[in-house]
Amino acid sequence: MTTTGTVPATPAELRRLVAAGRWTGPTAGLLDGYQQANLVVVPQDLAYDFLLYCTRNPKPCPVLAVTEPGDPTVRLGATTADLRTDLPRYRVWHHGEQVAEPTDITAYWREDAVGFLLGCSHTFEGPLRAAGVPVRYAEESAAPPVYVTNVPTRPAGRLSGPLVVSARSIPARLVPRAVEITSRYPAGHGAPVHIGDPAALGIADLGRPDFGPPPVVEPGDVPVFWACGVTPQLALPAVRAAYTITHHPGHMFVFDHTVDEGPAGLTG
Amino acid sequence: MTTTGTVPATPAELRRLVAAGRWTGPTAGLLDGYQQANLVVVPQDLAYDFLLYCTRNPKPCPVLAVTEPGDPTVRLGATTADLRTDLPRYRVWHHGEQVAEPTDITAYWREDAVGFLLGCSHTFEGPLRAAGVPVRYAEESAAPPVYVTNVPTRPAGRLSGPLVVSARSIPARLVPRAVEITSRYPAGHGAPVHIGDPAALGIADLGRPDFGPPPVVEPGDVPVFWACGVTPQLALPAVRAAYTITHHPGHMFVFDHTVDEGPAGLTG
Repeated sequence: MTTTGTVPATPAELRRLVAAGRWTGPTAGLLDGYQQANLVVVPQDLAYDFLLYCTRNPKPCPVLAVTEPGDPTVRLGATTADLRTDLPRYRVWHHGEQVAEPTDITAYWREDAVGFLLGCSHTFEGPLRAAGVPVRYAEESAAPPVYVTNVPTRPAGRLSGPLVVSARSIPARLVPRAVEITSRYPAGHGAPVHIGDPAALGIADLGRPDFGPPPVVEPGDVPVFWACGVTPQLALPAVRAAYTITHHPGHMFVFDHTVDEGPAGLTG
Repeated sequence: MTTTGTVPATPAELRRLVAAGRWTGPTAGLLDGYQQANLVVVPQDLAYDFLLYCTRNPKPCPVLAVTEPGDPTVRLGATTADLRTDLPRYRVWHHGEQVAEPTDITAYWREDAVGFLLGCSHTFEGPLRAAGVPVRYAEESAAPPVYVTNVPTRPAGRLSGPLVVSARSIPARLVPRAVEITSRYPAGHGAPVHIGDPAALGIADLGRPDFGPPPVVEPGDVPVFWACGVTPQLALPAVRAAYTITHHPGHMFVFDHTVDEGPAGLTG
């Protein structure tokens, strides 16, 4: 991780450091309370299918903002930012294969590129901690274990695939509070999709996640599963689009508004 | 209004009566508790702009279902239905001008037609009544007064226009309860956008709505305003699309699921 040695105080400061190449590390655990987002960039001819896929699967894919074709500028509420430079690290895919993990995508941006910013579960971790619900991660990972389930998402056009979930181990007596709090954040995957036995989602071994570190489980904990923003990354490769670009796991876009205030506006 | 003389007991029975031409009246006030929906049909080349407009304005335009291009069949949860025949009355627009108000759109359906079903405020009127919040309508109208505001929606592609709201007069002591209840139904426009002074929305005279009957106001009532599904009907005509089709006001699509159960599924 490259940093200036100080932790940025605001999302705008973080984005400036990132754009200058002075912050290339994860955003997880940073700037608690601000709206963080997953990034997916697709060619314009795939944008309708992708937007419809998100519409049909709002728990894994809550849409926060969509850019104009070719224009890398995202504008939402107080936030104006450049998708090509303002995330710490990306993944670039050509025809369904990953080809690069750059810290800047200016060289990969195309005239027909449409960017989608999707809510992520970092959104509700601040409120969980504030309510006394522990969010336990393996040392130094700052990311939850992530599992591919046997639950299908609703397909849309060329896109289909399984629901992906993140898991958190929560003391049994705090599980209702965790549901209550996360259900207030539909833009951050909302309420859990499942509580308890991993087998109900087709997860054979909780100790062996598909992505991320294994869970940290203490006596009396119950596993709680939320829809995860990795879901669209499993639906996209099969399309073998000329290109897609996503954020690198844990290296998110950070908006200027907090998860509780949301962007201004009476229409949504 | 044409009916069989009996009120249908289920949404499926209603849709059968409607498709047979034996029910052509409004659905407002019918089958309390079932999910009702506004209909918008657009040509495929306008579908991305329309879906993005809905995504950017979820309070007036909560998307429940989108059909495949050319296929009039809507499938969601337990519901399978034909958009051409299963609503009691429609409005057909050619190049932005209304050309017909038929009870069946089979003759107007096109090979590139995409249907959108959007949540409507009938969704939350059952729960309001059940909680003791009166929903007062002018005699025989079964529809609220509707106003065009001076609040702009977020544009998307060729679509832009003002936010349209419906108003209900609520006894002051029940206004918090009305907010609490309707906020549970984001697929039915959710929490109000404004409480009190109509001038804050640019409404000059509450007694003269832009659509629908005047409000029924009793002493101690406060006007409460919700985002309204008429909003997209004001954004569409300026596009002058070859065709668009909407439901006729009050003559909605009715799903088989209730507003509280929602369609089945872990992904949204």
